[in-house]
Amino acid sequence: MALFENIAEEIRKRIQSGQYKPGQKIPSIRDMAVEFECNKLTVQKAFERLKQDRYLDNIVGSGSFVRFPENISRSGAVYDLKTAYVSEHFFPHQVARNIFNHLFDTEKAGLFSTTPVEGEKDFREVLGRQFRLSTDRMLIVSGAQQGLDLTAKVFGARLADAMLFEDPTYPGAISLFKATHFVPMEKDGPDLSMLDRALSPKIKLFYTMPTVHNPTGITYSPEKKREIADRALTGDFYIIEDDYLSEFVRKPVTRFVDIVPEKTVYIKSLTQTTVSGIRLGFMIVPDSLYDKFLYTKYSSDIVSPGIMQKFMKRFIQTGAYGEYVAGTQRRINRRKKRLIKVLNAYPALFGGNWDKQSGYSLWVKSSMKIDLPHLPWDKGENFSFSRAYKNHLKISFMNLGSDDFERSLRYLEELFERICTP
Amino acid sequence: MALFENIAEEIRKRIQSGQYKPGQKIPSIRDMAVEFECNKLTVQKAFERLKQDRYLDNIVGSGSFVRFPENISRSGAVYDLKTAYVSEHFFPHQVARNIFNHLFDTEKAGLFSTTPVEGEKDFREVLGRQFRLSTDRMLIVSGAQQGLDLTAKVFGARLADAMLFEDPTYPGAISLFKATHFVPMEKDGPDLSMLDRALSPKIKLFYTMPTVHNPTGITYSPEKKREIADRALTGDFYIIEDDYLSEFVRKPVTRFVDIVPEKTVYIKSLTQTTVSGIRLGFMIVPDSLYDKFLYTKYSSDIVSPGIMQKFMKRFIQTGAYGEYVAGTQRRINRRKKRLIKVLNAYPALFGGNWDKQSGYSLWVKSSMKIDLPHLPWDKGENFSFSRAYKNHLKISFMNLGSDDFERSLRYLEELFERICTP
Repeated sequence: MALFENIAEEIRKRIQSGQYKPGQKIPSIRDMAVEFECNKLTVQKAFERLKQDRYLDNIVGSGSFVRFPENISRSGAVYDLKTAYVSEHFFPHQVARNIFNHLFDTEKAGLFSTTPVEGEKDFREVLGRQFRLSTDRMLIVSGAQQGLDLTAKVFGARLADAMLFEDPTYPGAISLFKATHFVPMEKDGPDLSMLDRALSPKIKLFYTMPTVHNPTGITYSPEKKREIADRALTGDFYIIEDDYLSEFVRKPVTRFVDIVPEKTVYIKSLTQTTVSGIRLGFMIVPDSLYDKFLYTKYSSDIVSPGIMQKFMKRFIQTGAYGEYVAGTQRRINRRKKRLIKVLNAYPALFGGNWDKQSGYSLWVKSSMKIDLPHLPWDKGENFSFSRAYKNHLKISFMNLGSDDFERSLRYLEELFERICTP
Repeated sequence: MALFENIAEEIRKRIQSGQYKPGQKIPSIRDMAVEFECNKLTVQKAFERLKQDRYLDNIVGSGSFVRFPENISRSGAVYDLKTAYVSEHFFPHQVARNIFNHLFDTEKAGLFSTTPVEGEKDFREVLGRQFRLSTDRMLIVSGAQQGLDLTAKVFGARLADAMLFEDPTYPGAISLFKATHFVPMEKDGPDLSMLDRALSPKIKLFYTMPTVHNPTGITYSPEKKREIADRALTGDFYIIEDDYLSEFVRKPVTRFVDIVPEKTVYIKSLTQTTVSGIRLGFMIVPDSLYDKFLYTKYSSDIVSPGIMQKFMKRFIQTGAYGEYVAGTQRRINRRKKRLIKVLNAYPALFGGNWDKQSGYSLWVKSSMKIDLPHLPWDKGENFSFSRAYKNHLKISFMNLGSDDFERSLRYLEELFERICTP
């Protein structure tokens, strides 16, 4: 191995061990050359290799930085227990077709006409009734990820320093916001004493999934929610409430947007509860930020497609949405029972209590690190920089047709069998 | 008027006259207090008022800055000669309906399934054939505005300093990129000597609409295009080629993406050539930037809706797109002739030659500033900070049904008549 490769290898180790953290500036070429007792060109070659391998980012004039993870979820694995969507096989195809034909009958040319930036008025009203929210400061977006992206833009460039995250949290938020401040999660929400320690005056935003938290599946207790809402008011920070699956908790919960609307940016996914092809969601933003969000949406992609908005409006209005969600909940219950049975058969690997988890994933701790080239599930380390979750698995079980789900269970059994057999 | 209102009024005048330019930092409260011989609280009140009225932006710790224009185009005016889309009345409704039903027949559940981040493979292949482009580095986006937004993100934060724009140019680009460097346009492209003066080593991007330029409607000469492509190679900058209407020039033109693909980020709108409800476009990006664009698309909104991609694929594949564009071109020709006749009837107001303008807008210089509260057209000052275009009008004439178009012509005649009558 050439010298520069040895140096690259050493730096890679420091990144993987967490000695150099994502977003952190690493020592300069000059300093590294001193440390490794070699010339600067050799270090530069090592840096080039690490850039190629996507470990480092170079910012001209500023130095080299550890790259943030840039995961793109892709499904398509044979046993896809990774993709957190509901399979299109369950989506009511004939209902959808009837709605499209109904739209062509009734909307005529208007089906392709210009939609207001904030979204179709009728659609917003239907959403307001369905989700018990005022439509005043509602904005239709192309899915919850766009809601996060708009938030990043509205709050500006040096956001990472001003933003607090749950630990673990959604990988898409980690990489989008370049998350660096975290508060550990307990079974009923964040650890409040750790939260208080993290809430310095420079923290302006707290990103949270209080209902069916990703990845743990837990829901905040009303008490903790109240405590955090109080802190948002007195400490003057905003709560980014990412509600991607609240349809799947047993009884309706009070949301941050209900308690402290003036300090909450509420983001509701309509894709996660339906099917991945429907790229829609909506936001409720504080009055003081509404114009800014509206302009930011406009400059991002003008408006979300009117046809999809009209489709979704009718899908909700006719009750098809409610029926579909109820059907999905029944499927979730059945599948979850099956999956837990498989996990329980390997007590040496998994011990745990999944009662408090809602939604269509299970967040599971394994007694050892399962390291295989093509894991069917999502790895714990994608959700946290902390070592505590290295041995966790997030198993999402709704993005499979019935046969594939059965085959996946068999595959898991074989896999766990092999691991447990000495 | 209170003293602070007088001061606010004076600062407003300086902004409107261009003495303080968009994005420019204005003197501090302390300096202003000295200038106006008053106390700092009074100046602060004036600043607050200007912030309220959206003239100023405050950046904590950095001072006060003249706000960039944040126009959101909204149609809906009685005589809408402002919105640059083709009216939905011309869109082939029955053809669209048949395509949707065909998709429901053939795609089944797949119609709502997950789409790759870069877009559906079949759709990209159809686009590659239609637009004579390789699909290797093609990325489907939710309209051309998203293409610009992704570009802004990929090239990063301090972009305004590194980016050159045509003058005049698209208002959405001015506000998104906070444009500050401009090169004046001539009848066949930018003034090359001014371009050379503007191209300092810190300029890394040139944003251009070389075919049916917005707002002037001109198309670059092949010679100028060649010259600029050479400069991109030797001067090491990227060309952002915004192709929103090239379907409407008489014969196919050679694009920057054909001449210098390695230095071109090509953005093609599919909304401007069809109908505003179809929020689609695509990009071809240099190989070295492809991964970065892909991740940026994913973190912006995951993927553009698969249903719309499948619809557009078939709309192009069956020839309906080509027919529709040809039909639109015929309508453009007829309407443009009518509009020019109206303009020519007022030689005291308008003199000009519109032969070189393509597309469905006319960029018209008036001999005087026409200042009315609700202008039916788009004002020249939205496209430029330079005084040269204060008296220009951009009249877009395709976003109206037939009756409304006729009424708009009558309205223009009445308006011009009144202005010309002493």
